[in-house]
Amino acid sequence: MSKILPTLKSALDLHELSNDQLKQAADEIREVLCNLVATRSAHFASNLGVVELTLALHSVYDFRRDRLIWDTGHQIYPHKLVTGRYAEFNTIRTKGGLMGYPNPKESEYDLFMTGHAGCSVSTVLGLRSGDQLTGEDDRHAVAVIGDGAFPSGIVYEALNNAALYRRKFLVILNDNKMSICPRVGGIAEYLDRLRTNPLYTGLKTEVVRVLNRVPVFGDPAERFLAQLKEAAKAGLHGGMFFEDLGFRYIGPVDGHNIPVLRKYLAMVRDMQDPVLLHVVTDKGHGFQPAEEDPAFFHTPPIFKRENGRAVPVPAKSSPAYTNVARDAVLEQMRRDERVVALTAAMCQGNKLEPVRDEFPSRFFDVGICESHAVAFAAGQAKAGLRPIVSIYSTFLQRSYDQIFQEVSLQNLPVTFLLDRAGLTGPDGPTHHGVFDIGYMRIFPNMVVMAPGDSDDLSKMLEFSLQHSSPCAIRYPKANVFNVNSERQPIELGKAEVLHWGHDGMLICYGTLLDACFTAREKLAREGIDVGIINARFVKPLDRTTILKAIRECPFVVTIEEGQLAGGFGSAVLELAVDEGADTRHIKRLGIPDIYVEHGERSELLADLGLDSEGIVNTCRHLAQGEALRSNRRMGIEA
Amino acid sequence: MSKILPTLKSALDLHELSNDQLKQAADEIREVLCNLVATRSAHFASNLGVVELTLALHSVYDFRRDRLIWDTGHQIYPHKLVTGRYAEFNTIRTKGGLMGYPNPKESEYDLFMTGHAGCSVSTVLGLRSGDQLTGEDDRHAVAVIGDGAFPSGIVYEALNNAALYRRKFLVILNDNKMSICPRVGGIAEYLDRLRTNPLYTGLKTEVVRVLNRVPVFGDPAERFLAQLKEAAKAGLHGGMFFEDLGFRYIGPVDGHNIPVLRKYLAMVRDMQDPVLLHVVTDKGHGFQPAEEDPAFFHTPPIFKRENGRAVPVPAKSSPAYTNVARDAVLEQMRRDERVVALTAAMCQGNKLEPVRDEFPSRFFDVGICESHAVAFAAGQAKAGLRPIVSIYSTFLQRSYDQIFQEVSLQNLPVTFLLDRAGLTGPDGPTHHGVFDIGYMRIFPNMVVMAPGDSDDLSKMLEFSLQHSSPCAIRYPKANVFNVNSERQPIELGKAEVLHWGHDGMLICYGTLLDACFTAREKLAREGIDVGIINARFVKPLDRTTILKAIRECPFVVTIEEGQLAGGFGSAVLELAVDEGADTRHIKRLGIPDIYVEHGERSELLADLGLDSEGIVNTCRHLAQGEALRSNRRMGIEA
Repeated sequence: MSKILPTLKSALDLHELSNDQLKQAADEIREVLCNLVATRSAHFASNLGVVELTLALHSVYDFRRDRLIWDTGHQIYPHKLVTGRYAEFNTIRTKGGLMGYPNPKESEYDLFMTGHAGCSVSTVLGLRSGDQLTGEDDRHAVAVIGDGAFPSGIVYEALNNAALYRRKFLVILNDNKMSICPRVGGIAEYLDRLRTNPLYTGLKTEVVRVLNRVPVFGDPAERFLAQLKEAAKAGLHGGMFFEDLGFRYIGPVDGHNIPVLRKYLAMVRDMQDPVLLHVVTDKGHGFQPAEEDPAFFHTPPIFKRENGRAVPVPAKSSPAYTNVARDAVLEQMRRDERVVALTAAMCQGNKLEPVRDEFPSRFFDVGICESHAVAFAAGQAKAGLRPIVSIYSTFLQRSYDQIFQEVSLQNLPVTFLLDRAGLTGPDGPTHHGVFDIGYMRIFPNMVVMAPGDSDDLSKMLEFSLQHSSPCAIRYPKANVFNVNSERQPIELGKAEVLHWGHDGMLICYGTLLDACFTAREKLAREGIDVGIINARFVKPLDRTTILKAIRECPFVVTIEEGQLAGGFGSAVLELAVDEGADTRHIKRLGIPDIYVEHGERSELLADLGLDSEGIVNTCRHLAQGEALRSNRRMGIEA
Repeated sequence: MSKILPTLKSALDLHELSNDQLKQAADEIREVLCNLVATRSAHFASNLGVVELTLALHSVYDFRRDRLIWDTGHQIYPHKLVTGRYAEFNTIRTKGGLMGYPNPKESEYDLFMTGHAGCSVSTVLGLRSGDQLTGEDDRHAVAVIGDGAFPSGIVYEALNNAALYRRKFLVILNDNKMSICPRVGGIAEYLDRLRTNPLYTGLKTEVVRVLNRVPVFGDPAERFLAQLKEAAKAGLHGGMFFEDLGFRYIGPVDGHNIPVLRKYLAMVRDMQDPVLLHVVTDKGHGFQPAEEDPAFFHTPPIFKRENGRAVPVPAKSSPAYTNVARDAVLEQMRRDERVVALTAAMCQGNKLEPVRDEFPSRFFDVGICESHAVAFAAGQAKAGLRPIVSIYSTFLQRSYDQIFQEVSLQNLPVTFLLDRAGLTGPDGPTHHGVFDIGYMRIFPNMVVMAPGDSDDLSKMLEFSLQHSSPCAIRYPKANVFNVNSERQPIELGKAEVLHWGHDGMLICYGTLLDACFTAREKLAREGIDVGIINARFVKPLDRTTILKAIRECPFVVTIEEGQLAGGFGSAVLELAVDEGADTRHIKRLGIPDIYVEHGERSELLADLGLDSEGIVNTCRHLAQGEALRSNRRMGIEA
């Protein structure tokens, strides 16, 4: 049997395929996905779950013209495989290769580069509104959103708003019974009830028969009875929640049955109202180990298949900052019962399962609801607890206004652990955590820190829980570094001088301290003596130490893994200028005003001159310039 | 009949009052509110609407110990009047006086300083969780939220999450059928249906009678019929939407009937589940003109009562930037049919009614849903429209992550109009728009502007709609200023030199250009020649012009109405240092690292040295220092 995937010229070819051929294509896609995760870490279970849905959608719609957004976007792999990217698929998540998320630069089939959850309903509604106003009302519009993303506030805002338009508009709720972690909350329980309702379990005929036997009494009760029958029908058919929001609810539908999916999609395509189609899928479908543990197989470590089982490929690894943070959280929770931990569906990503298991009543995974997580933590802090909010740097952007109003303005002692701060690597620009230095330090009352090494991280968490104001601690997605020498204790607004340099000084804010050490050694071999300050705090800055370096050292380099605009280096310049210090020998290293692509973190840092070699080059250049100026002052011509 | 309000020692005294006495207290509160708005602009209609609810709540609960959050907070006036602040109430919204929002510094009865909508359910849930874990589970917890705030995403996140706790927890939905502007969306329509359901309209007995007459058939249909009857009851009693989220729904209840409110509150206080109590009120209740036009009377201009009618007190006024922005939006919409306008319940605040009326199909008020507004606009832009998003600077913080992912990362041409940028005045720190310079300029692809005067504002809007990247334009809540001389056209990244100064240069980013002009004149009379650059862009900066000023002028002062951390002045320092320019003669003026209290904008600016007098003092000081240094260079001792 010849393969179908390699022969597809465009997704349009799927329109011509039979259900059996689509079934074969589904098998081929699963084979590709299984082979991929044997070579690198990639999103897996969620992609296995939408294979049939992807094929059915592309076989019914024409998404060169119709509008399709896969919410969040990590389930985009089957879509990429059938929209002209089969041949280059093995480059996915590598530098210069395909992104692991939708990317408009790759294909006209990808409309938005996404990665943060919940915005699809809003953007598709916007596209629909645009098409309507530009006279292209015939374009269909589809948002596919998982039940994990569904409780995000913006989804509700969009659903609420969609009711206004009363035009065709399809939201597919891909109910795989999972967020990245097991789901929580009222919506999840509601979906559970929908899935067990009589219609889905096949008793429709019987129920309708009963309903029709309910007699109708004489006036005046009659009109109420009519209402009552309608209410009963609605109650039984389920989905009132969505109908109350102004959507027609259809489902639940088996998301792995291609003929059924095609039939339903063809039907809803031509409906003239906002429709919510409830599709039930299994995360990890078609690969048993992933079906059994979809959280683990969300982005599994590299493994081999042996007789249908997953056998891990041993990898050399040292502990990651994520693990250190988790252990520090555990330690603090054991020490002080006021300490509680919160996350937003990042229980697995932040490796918090042991916290959940040891302290079930003091651990709160609120689902993909970052705004609520922060306001909720503020309430807890007000009631006397010491909450730790553990969310990726980039996703915490969802809480910007709650960090402002509920935490910073009230000056409540909430600790933020910003995991994945800096360049996260293969996920790319939607996941890089590069804005937090600027966005955190702008708020009064905030203490904003970055550990220079593993030891700093634990100590900073301990410090923050003793401190009476909100604190933020950022750390990278990286293996830990250890300074391995006698250390200064963490003290509010105090930097740590690790080496004093006579030729120049590196002032490093957090994540790149290891590169500074390597650079210092390399430079020493060239006879250039460069010191290192572990800044620790961007707010409050250590004015004394940093001013001393600026005033005494021939050159100063600030180093941060974040946007330069408004970042750590800027804070140093603000201090210097406020104090009247000369700044002409200061150089800022960090991320310029661009979106950095995906690739291994080390590759990306090297490209930006933020690895040890880049730091060496910068220092060498500055040292030479300084030598020239110094010679001139001494009257020596080069 | 002696007055009750002045005799209240604490809210606890309300427990002892009869329903008739509470009714009298309600009348007294309304009298105070009407007298207040005859003296100054203040929140009015929303406060009139919650008088009875406030009295009933405080007569049933003890909120020194129980937890109460008024969502958003502008309806806090009756609460302040009965919690020990009657005597000083006439200071409200004046500098040094009471805030117009809850303020924990004023009273133990105010738990959070708020002003942004929708967070109450999250914070009260957090308080509840904290009380539970600290062994104070007997404390009751109540969030009161209006139907305007109810569609905010964070409310849904919190409701979804509340289902987890299965403990007593009360959300009161204050359904006054209004946001600040008329409400929109599925939820609003749903509430309309709830209010007209048979139970609320008094037909309960009849309906239950009919239900009980529905016969029950033999097995196997019987169990379905039982289900059916339950579904019918649920459908009829309403509130399934909330029940689906895990709440017990009770209501609707008449929010102006004190005995009924007390009865219901006493009942729900002791329920052990999350309860949603649906209270129906009239915004503006008890003052007919406000009942008839609650949007106008949200924060009305000063008026007198004459025979129960509101007679405006004539005020001298020149047009505000808000009006200029609105007119510019209208002009651009007339010129180009791709231009659409969006707001988030700020139709009245941003004076956009004429836009709505002239272009109903191209105007989108999405309600208090800022996140959705921005993602929706991004979808429209992708479909070829040119959306203008008009939201207050401070409320746009709710869209931080959508500005990042949906707009800046995609590089879509969405224009942001940030009204109320800078110090908004009497509303205080929850409403000051002081973070946007830093938060906007951090994002790649963004063009970030501030008009120096009224003319700039219109021209910048025109410019932004020709530009292919996202643009942000910030302007203050202030009357317009006009430069009144020949002007340079708006050009990407170009500042405008209004005067070249031989003694020093003011580089002003936006709102404070008028103060710079006044300062320049005052300084000229002292013989100090200070020039003015209208910076226009913080991103991209005009490198040439600004570097020239830095290199040639004896001193340079950057001026902005926003936080100094990471702001415009920082951007100037980044440029200077990157280019190797000396910065020792640069001084940055702006808002320091504090939350600025409420008061008239002019008072607050003067306190911060950001009025013309403050600028004069700064320049005088710099000019003297420069003269000293210059003398020293010339060998002249002072």
